[in-house]
This record gives sequence, structure tokens and C-alpha cells, in this order.
Amino acid sequence: MPERTPVAVVGGGPAGLLLSHLLHTSGIEHVVLEARTREEIENTHRAGILEASSVQVLVDHGLDRVLREGDRHDGIVLRFDGADHRVDLTGLTGRSVWLYPQTAVFTDLATRRAADGGDVRWGATVTRVLDADGDRPGVLWTDAEGTGHELRCDVLVGADGSRSTLRHTLPEAQRRTYAHEYPYAWFGVIVEAPRSAPELVYTTSEHGFALISQRTDTHQRMYFQCDPDEDPEGWSEDRIWAELQRRVAGPDGFRLVEGPVRERSVLRFRSSVVEPVRHGRMLLAGDAAHTVPPTGAKGLNLALADVVVLHDVLETWFATRDDAVLDAYGHRVAERVWRAQHFSAWMSTMLHSHPGETGFAARRRLAELRTLVASEAGRRFLAEGYTGWGPVLGTGPGAMSAAMPGGEGR
Amino acid sequence: MPERTPVAVVGGGPAGLLLSHLLHTSGIEHVVLEARTREEIENTHRAGILEASSVQVLVDHGLDRVLREGDRHDGIVLRFDGADHRVDLTGLTGRSVWLYPQTAVFTDLATRRAADGGDVRWGATVTRVLDADGDRPGVLWTDAEGTGHELRCDVLVGADGSRSTLRHTLPEAQRRTYAHEYPYAWFGVIVEAPRSAPELVYTTSEHGFALISQRTDTHQRMYFQCDPDEDPEGWSEDRIWAELQRRVAGPDGFRLVEGPVRERSVLRFRSSVVEPVRHGRMLLAGDAAHTVPPTGAKGLNLALADVVVLHDVLETWFATRDDAVLDAYGHRVAERVWRAQHFSAWMSTMLHSHPGETGFAARRRLAELRTLVASEAGRRFLAEGYTGWGPVLGTGPGAMSAAMPGGEGR
Repeated sequence: MPERTPVAVVGGGPAGLLLSHLLHTSGIEHVVLEARTREEIENTHRAGILEASSVQVLVDHGLDRVLREGDRHDGIVLRFDGADHRVDLTGLTGRSVWLYPQTAVFTDLATRRAADGGDVRWGATVTRVLDADGDRPGVLWTDAEGTGHELRCDVLVGADGSRSTLRHTLPEAQRRTYAHEYPYAWFGVIVEAPRSAPELVYTTSEHGFALISQRTDTHQRMYFQCDPDEDPEGWSEDRIWAELQRRVAGPDGFRLVEGPVRERSVLRFRSSVVEPVRHGRMLLAGDAAHTVPPTGAKGLNLALADVVVLHDVLETWFATRDDAVLDAYGHRVAERVWRAQHFSAWMSTMLHSHPGETGFAARRRLAELRTLVASEAGRRFLAEGYTGWGPVLGTGPGAMSAAMPGGEGR
Repeated sequence: MPERTPVAVVGGGPAGLLLSHLLHTSGIEHVVLEARTREEIENTHRAGILEASSVQVLVDHGLDRVLREGDRHDGIVLRFDGADHRVDLTGLTGRSVWLYPQTAVFTDLATRRAADGGDVRWGATVTRVLDADGDRPGVLWTDAEGTGHELRCDVLVGADGSRSTLRHTLPEAQRRTYAHEYPYAWFGVIVEAPRSAPELVYTTSEHGFALISQRTDTHQRMYFQCDPDEDPEGWSEDRIWAELQRRVAGPDGFRLVEGPVRERSVLRFRSSVVEPVRHGRMLLAGDAAHTVPPTGAKGLNLALADVVVLHDVLETWFATRDDAVLDAYGHRVAERVWRAQHFSAWMSTMLHSHPGETGFAARRRLAELRTLVASEAGRRFLAEGYTGWGPVLGTGPGAMSAAMPGGEGR
């Protein structure tokens, strides 16, 4: 006899674990299956900017370490033409963002699920999806020892990341994928050094893009634009620092504080959205449903926003068993997803030089940046996108706009 | 012996004639050479939206018919997703635009120059530029009867449009051209019919872009996106109306009021900037120096803005003979030129579907439009660009921003 549970959540990253935590608070039984170990996930460095509404979601559900150990950022700096142009996020929108690494969000959730006796199975690899169309969908999965199992559920959730197994079980004929590839990537490093700047500094010049970010008092995160096929191991530390210094050159002889390079990796740029996000009793959330390029750090925020809506959907569905509620899920998340897609693509395009970029395109980009920072409206429009678009709990296709600054215009 | 004049202005369109009018008010003698006849120019229909600062320039110099016969527009409508989203230009920026055809601006200027005894020679074709590098540049030109002449001057001005003869005499090694071609064009018509809408309506849908514009009580201007190689004569009137109606479909069963199609043409989309705009004693202004695609109607406004700065440059130069003043001309116009380049490219890209556009790109555009109109800041940022960026008389590279709304951020 297969094991049974009301909700099977495939994926134990921040999206899957937040859903698990929220389902727990609602008393909805469920099982989480995650292919990796907890340690593997904790050693994968990812984005580190949380929108105010993401922080609110965590804090509202008892996860408040972010307030004590995260760094609130009230602005960002755009550096171009050799000058700094600060965008006062908080002054312009009333909202801040928080520098708090994705791994810290994961750790908070994993620790809390363990403390609450959550059924999170690490090293559990899903090998097959069963009867996604039916009333009793399920998965075949293999545990860390290689033993096979079957798990059946009422609702199957795919929060299994950008390489989602569950997404690939959507019938080809019904699955639409909207995608865009970029001709550049980020070379990301973690360095052991004190902070070089108090806020994130997005720089663009004829040498390309770079981003000065932070992590802790002793370790910093930095990125610079590179070829998608760049081999990070082919770079000496000296060469990495020389490239970073050249990219971030700024006013008053600005120099980064250097130190040992502790980690390095190349982050690919890809925008993608799969629709529909519901197929029968199977629902997708987070990176399994959509990915964004890293500029603007929307990925984790979108995933958490999906999960808040999905939790609301599941609460209602278990109370009513009305499948229209499941159908509405896609509509409720779509507006935010596409806004974030546009914002991420816009920030990426505006700040990166692309291979073979014409002189016209390069100067148009610079004119866009100049026009944007010279205008209060321009800076505020950018800040609205950067800090996010208000509360995450949409109740329909037009719901989000009502909660947005200036949302009366819809 | 060649004829001599302090300033030879090649080109008698709105840019050349405004310069002539301003030089006249300053008592600077000059000659205008224009290859076409006055009638030919008056029969060429062009853009019809004047920024508030363009109107101010005309009115300040005694050309106030625009206030009596032009139509002040306080807003535009963006129509997408089957709904209208009005951008309240005046409410957002304190500035309006004026619907007043380029031919009317031309007629006002030509009439005024004639009344003031201006030396404007129609049918005067420049065949060669002489000694642009020297202190006495000049041109060889042929009059309407085919007789050749030589005109020498202190300063030679090229206001001879996008196919500028003078621009092509800039030495190749020094001339940089920044350009972008678009994979679409506008099919423009003048129809005999009453107005279908009180303000300009920019529409975009899966069928492509269309623009509902106006002209008079009895004639209207409309456009729809087409292939750059479209043959306007290959379209029946019925087919034109069917295509327009399909493109502009809107709320409440909106339909255009139809009538006979009186004129038709295809407008190519091209962005270009040539630098430098000064070579020795030769200076370029308007379309001779830069062209923009028609979306947003920046071309005439940029040309008038160039001329106001150029007039100031020439007044100072004739008083001081300091060539640094001529050199500064390019810097003084560049910021506005590039802002307008960005704005025109942005409006074009946001509103047109392009051949082979991916599903991602189409949905990203729609998300951009939705985010923009839902945000007061977004609408205001668009309105700032649409209505222009304040007074046209820059006094240096950073002068314009001081006069801009929110300009403190530079």
C-alpha cells in the first residue's frame, strides 16, 4: 500500500519549506520531499535581497531572525558616467529591502520545520509522477539509501526549482513556455574582506556591468558581467580583482577593499515562464514555474509570493474542495510574475553591455540611465519595482494593483 | 566675385526658417537656400505634436497662430488589453502638448520671413560645399532656372534635413554615425472624417500598433504599423479601414468614424545621430544632425530646440568671434538629443510588435505597459518624456537637468 498524505510538496528549498511551514500553521498535513541534503542547500550561495513584503511574510509567521541579523537597505547606487546616483528606495516608496542571504532564509525555515516536527525528507529523489490528472496523484521516490517508495496525495506541489521534474510532466500540448536567453552572465565571488560600500552599487561602463554587494562584516559578495561560457576556475585572484576594480571605478578614486576570493561561480541569465501552473491536482510554485535573471534579485521574492498565494488556495480548497480555487491560482500569481519578469529584463538590459552592442544602443542605454536618475518620477518608478509591489496576497487578476502605489490607474 | 553673407543657412524647412527668423530679430544678416519650392513643402504632411517648450519658442517670437488654431492636448490614451489607460500629461507634469501640423509651423515661418523681407531662396539646390574647414566657407548652388552661383559666408549652417548634403561633407574620419533601424514602419493616412477621439490614442494588440490622431474638424490623421517595404498604393480604402478598425478595437465597441482616404504614405523608422555637429565653421541642426522614429513625434521639437541653442551660439560668436562658442554647441544640444533618442526608441519598442517577436517579448511588453500605467511615477515618467524636458536653451552639458522636473538628482 502506498503512503498517503493530503499534500505532497516536491522540493525543500525556501519555497517548499515556507509552504510546509504555512500548511503546518493551518493544520494541513503534508510531506516534503527534497533530493538534496540540508547541508548541500546550505552551501549553495544564492541571491540575498528580500523585498519588504517578503520580510513581512517571514516575520508574520514567526521567522524574525532577518530583523536581527539582516541588513536593512534604504537605497541603492547606480554608478555610471563616473558618478554615483543614489536611488533613495525608502524616501521614494516608503519601503526598504533587506540584505539577507537565501541560505539564511532556508536555514530559518529548515530549523523551524525540524523544531515543529515537520515531515521533511532530505535526499528523497522523485523519479516519476503518477496520475497528475486524477484525484489521487502521487510520486515514486527513492530515499538516500536507494529504496523506492510511493506517495499518494490530494494535491501535488512542484516547488522543485528551475530544473523541476514536475514541470516536465505537464503534457507538451498544454504546456507553454515563454523564455528569453541573454548573451551574458555574472561571474560571482564571495571574498573575505570588509565592506567596500554601505549599499549595493550597480555599475555600468564601457567595460561592462559589475555589482558591489555585501554579506557580513568579514565577507562580501561581488559580481561582474562575463560570457555565459566563462570558466571561473580559469581566473587568478589577481585577475578577478583587477577586473572588478576596472569595472567599479568611480568618483574620488574609489577602490574596492581586496581580500582572498573564497567562492566563485558563473550565474546564467535566463527569463522563463511556464503556463499553466496548474494541471489537474498538480500546482507549480517558484523557480519550477518561472525563472528570472539575477539582476534585481526577484527570484526568491517571487517564489515566496507564489507560496503565500498557494497556501491561501490550499486552505480554501481543503475547506471547499472547489476546483475553481485551484484554477484561480495561476491568475492570482500571474501579474506579479510578469511584472517581475519585465523588471528583471529591464534592469538587465539597461545595465549590461552586450556583445556586439552598437554605439547607438550603448548611448541610448546611457541616455536612459541619465533620464531616469534625473527625474523623481523615474527614480520612484525604478524603486517601486526594486522594492516590490506591495502585499503578496492577490485575490484576482487585478488585485495587486489596488495595493500598489499609484494603483488607481489600473 | 562670389556673393557674401555672414550666415548661409542651407535648408528652408521649419529649422532653417526658425533660425532665419531668430537671426533676423538679432540683426544678423543671412541667406536661406532651399531646394524645394514653398508649395512642395506645404504639401508634405509631417508630424503634428509640439511640446510646450516648442510652442513657447514660437509664441515668444511672435508666431502665435498655434495658440488660436492649434489644439491643446492635456493627455494621451494608451489602449491595450482591450482597455483605455489615460496619461494625464498636464496633471502629471504641468505641461501640455499642442496638435499643430509641421506644415502649419512652416507656413507661419515662411509667411513671416516674407513679410519681414527675408532672403529665402526657394528652388536653390546646393551642389557643393566649399572650404568648410576655412574662415570663408561657402556653397555652390543652382537656382530654379539652372543658373549656377557661389555663396560665401562666415558660418555655414546645415538645416537641410535627413538627407543632408552638408552632413555628407563632414570628413569620414571625423564623422561618427550612431544609428538603429527598426523592422517596422507606419502606414499613415489622412482621412476626411470627423474626429473619432478627442486625444491621441496609442493602441497595441496582437494585431500590432495603431495611432488615432487628429488634424481638423473634417480631416484626421491615423497610422498603423506595417512592413517597411509596404506599398501604400496596394491597399484599397476598405482594406485600410478594416485594418485600422481591427487594430484600434477598444472598450464599449469602439469604432472609428470612416470616410474617404485622402492621403497615404509609409513612414520609415530610423534612429540616427551624427557627431560632431560642428566642423570648422559648418554647423548642423535638426534632421541633418539626428533623426528619430515618429513615435512620440520628437523630430520637429528637437529641430526647434537645436535652433534656439544655435541662434544663441551665433549671436555670441558674432559678438566675440570666439570659436570655443561654436565648439560648445554640440555639448549644449547633446543631452536633449539623446534623451529624445531614448524616449523615441522606448515608445516605439514598447508599443510595436516586431516580426518574429517571441511570446516572452510580447508578454514582457504588456507587463511593462501594465506596470507603467498602474504607477503614478510610471505615468509621470512617460509624461515627462512626452511633453519634453523644459526650456530648450541649455547653457552646458548639465544645464537642462536643472530645468527638469526632479532635476535635482543629477
